[in-house]
Amino acid sequence: MMGMGMEGEKVIEKVRQVGERAKKASLSLMNISTGLKNAFLYALAERLEKNEQEIIRANRIDLERAMASGMKKALLDRLELNSKRIKDMVVGLRQIAGLSDPVGEVIEGTKRPNGLLITRVRVPLGVVAIIYEARPNVTIDSIGLGIKSGNALILRGSSSTLNSNLFLVEEARVTLQACGLPEDAVQILDSGTHEEVTALLSLREYVDVVIPRGGGELIKAVVENSRVPVIETGVGNCHVYVDARADLIMAERIVVNAKTQRPSVCNACETLLVHQDIASRFLPQIGKALQEKGVEIRGCPKTRQFLPQVLEATEEDWYTEYLDLILAVRVVRDVEGAIAHINKYGSRHSEAIVTEDYTTARKFLEEVDAAAVYVNASTRFTDGGEFGMGAEIGISTQKLHARGPMGLRELTTSKFIVYGSGQVRE
Amino acid sequence: MMGMGMEGEKVIEKVRQVGERAKKASLSLMNISTGLKNAFLYALAERLEKNEQEIIRANRIDLERAMASGMKKALLDRLELNSKRIKDMVVGLRQIAGLSDPVGEVIEGTKRPNGLLITRVRVPLGVVAIIYEARPNVTIDSIGLGIKSGNALILRGSSSTLNSNLFLVEEARVTLQACGLPEDAVQILDSGTHEEVTALLSLREYVDVVIPRGGGELIKAVVENSRVPVIETGVGNCHVYVDARADLIMAERIVVNAKTQRPSVCNACETLLVHQDIASRFLPQIGKALQEKGVEIRGCPKTRQFLPQVLEATEEDWYTEYLDLILAVRVVRDVEGAIAHINKYGSRHSEAIVTEDYTTARKFLEEVDAAAVYVNASTRFTDGGEFGMGAEIGISTQKLHARGPMGLRELTTSKFIVYGSGQVRE
Repeated sequence: MMGMGMEGEKVIEKVRQVGERAKKASLSLMNISTGLKNAFLYALAERLEKNEQEIIRANRIDLERAMASGMKKALLDRLELNSKRIKDMVVGLRQIAGLSDPVGEVIEGTKRPNGLLITRVRVPLGVVAIIYEARPNVTIDSIGLGIKSGNALILRGSSSTLNSNLFLVEEARVTLQACGLPEDAVQILDSGTHEEVTALLSLREYVDVVIPRGGGELIKAVVENSRVPVIETGVGNCHVYVDARADLIMAERIVVNAKTQRPSVCNACETLLVHQDIASRFLPQIGKALQEKGVEIRGCPKTRQFLPQVLEATEEDWYTEYLDLILAVRVVRDVEGAIAHINKYGSRHSEAIVTEDYTTARKFLEEVDAAAVYVNASTRFTDGGEFGMGAEIGISTQKLHARGPMGLRELTTSKFIVYGSGQVRE
Repeated sequence: MMGMGMEGEKVIEKVRQVGERAKKASLSLMNISTGLKNAFLYALAERLEKNEQEIIRANRIDLERAMASGMKKALLDRLELNSKRIKDMVVGLRQIAGLSDPVGEVIEGTKRPNGLLITRVRVPLGVVAIIYEARPNVTIDSIGLGIKSGNALILRGSSSTLNSNLFLVEEARVTLQACGLPEDAVQILDSGTHEEVTALLSLREYVDVVIPRGGGELIKAVVENSRVPVIETGVGNCHVYVDARADLIMAERIVVNAKTQRPSVCNACETLLVHQDIASRFLPQIGKALQEKGVEIRGCPKTRQFLPQVLEATEEDWYTEYLDLILAVRVVRDVEGAIAHINKYGSRHSEAIVTEDYTTARKFLEEVDAAAVYVNASTRFTDGGEFGMGAEIGISTQKLHARGPMGLRELTTSKFIVYGSGQVRE
């Protein structure tokens, strides 16, 4: 027991040192030029391209360990780095280099009656910690976005990809140094212990924000235990509401797309709401279309009047993010019933109405409380790329700081710069 | 013990119900007109004016209880509501009514190649909890800012002002109802227990943000215990750096103002940094000026060469927010020494340089990491009113969401509203 305590203390001290070095690196990253940041991104892209074989070899050690431990095939697939995936990482880095630099933007400014010129300028957050699961490409993706926005990074991936992550981080550190940048701008925690995460989440002195990227359990654990400010990303219990005045052909296309185009992601639709006046026409139509795509439906009693073969939905279904080919369906009285359902059960991610009625559309857009609200489009568009941000670090479902897809700009904060000529306060 | 547990459970359930009601009220506040919000603010102002005597009577009960418990005079003063202070609250409400409404602003928008029109609009945060100490005027101030920005409020003041706060909140609720607004838009927690605060800080389901307004201990307790996102306000360990090329008359005026104009506030100066080349001239000058204002100086060894009568500063002094007529003084080698000192010991609130050198000024402004950085002006200007925001709910020293003085806009978030014509994702 005493031994464990000492191990724990060593881990805590090590994490503290990582934090201290990151803070120091972040101060020198704060004001470097866009050109230098882009030079790093291009150099890293080139290095990864050149070292493809070594990356695959490092990744294979993780894969073999995972196979030996009996990991399931779907998870093994997420873990694997192959030539195509390394190419994607490389392309991603070059895309980030092509995005405009948010740092240095003068957001607003005003000259006060006393002559003070007050400006608000965009600056990096400082030290960003990212806690993530599986996919080792998140390592390079985070490094690209983090460095481009002028932040120092502390990465904490899962132990199943540790060997791949260590290799990729070392590539980044070597490249940083070659570019004359502080290598401690990218650090990784590698003890694989719980103490390590706990220590990281309490490092308010050095860490400005922590972003969990992964499943609901990971996000919940970070939110509940962190004393560092958290940007919560993505649980998505999203809805499509088909109104009485919907174009039912458009509605079918949108519902099928939102549910089946990629069911495992957070902006996929989980519950369909249907206006009672069109239930008798639309439910058989959509039931057939979804059946052809292999979707299992769980319906409310009214839904089952028109789709008698489907299972009955329970209260729990309305709360569930299936991330699978399952759809809950409920008949509602009108748009107000739809809004009430969404505001009660939704996770405030992405919500859509299909309607041709102007006033109903406006009501839905204004009264539904979510990061993104759509009229006549699929919920699947909630994405940094689709919104024109170029790249995204995640989709925030909280309201502080960032809401919805987060791009480079959401990895910055602002600072007031005030120019005086001797002003004092009376 | 079992009895206490049950009491605790009752408190938790009561707070949960308060949260649930607040969330419900917040949904109907989200889209009400500016006119209606202003009508409420004017009506409340009028009501407080009319009921001045009742307010003073309610406050007297708090005052008498506090006196009986032996509260110190300075604290008693903060607790008191008199005719002048009620007038100030009334004027404050009318000022807030005069500010432009941040809700509904279209922040940005773009038409994507696929025809989707993506707009980002400003919306209320939802439910804002405010935990505060002493001064009962914070109650009215928070209600004014909260309602104007379309948020429902859960207030938790200190038990020493409970009677005053209950009275003021009841005035607000009666006024809300008279204006046709949900009275649960303003609620107060009144059990005075610790369980109540703990329960509030875990209500992620209903509370969107918690803002602690008060001393360092209160803020620390909220930050460490909250699972609800926090906007941390104000510890200020602020510095003035007098450069080799400073106008020393201006420097004296700024240092004296920043230290003595109101020493008890967060934007007052706590440490003076002096360039070594002017130490022999400036230190005797500023020493004399500060002595005349009754300021106690604690100096580094070099400072004491020129001001031999002062105490020696310890390492702890560099970290201390005195909030009093005490100033730590350190001689630094150059602007880089000043920046390093500030980035190490400062609380990232407000920092100033006095210099006539252009390049030095730019270096300081860019490399000091703080919410507000000044050249040739007093740190005392970091304030919502002084920055032209009209009113402030506090000064944020964190980097997420809001940094520096927070006005109405910082009590909002954004929402993507997307207009489609049947788009689905390929």
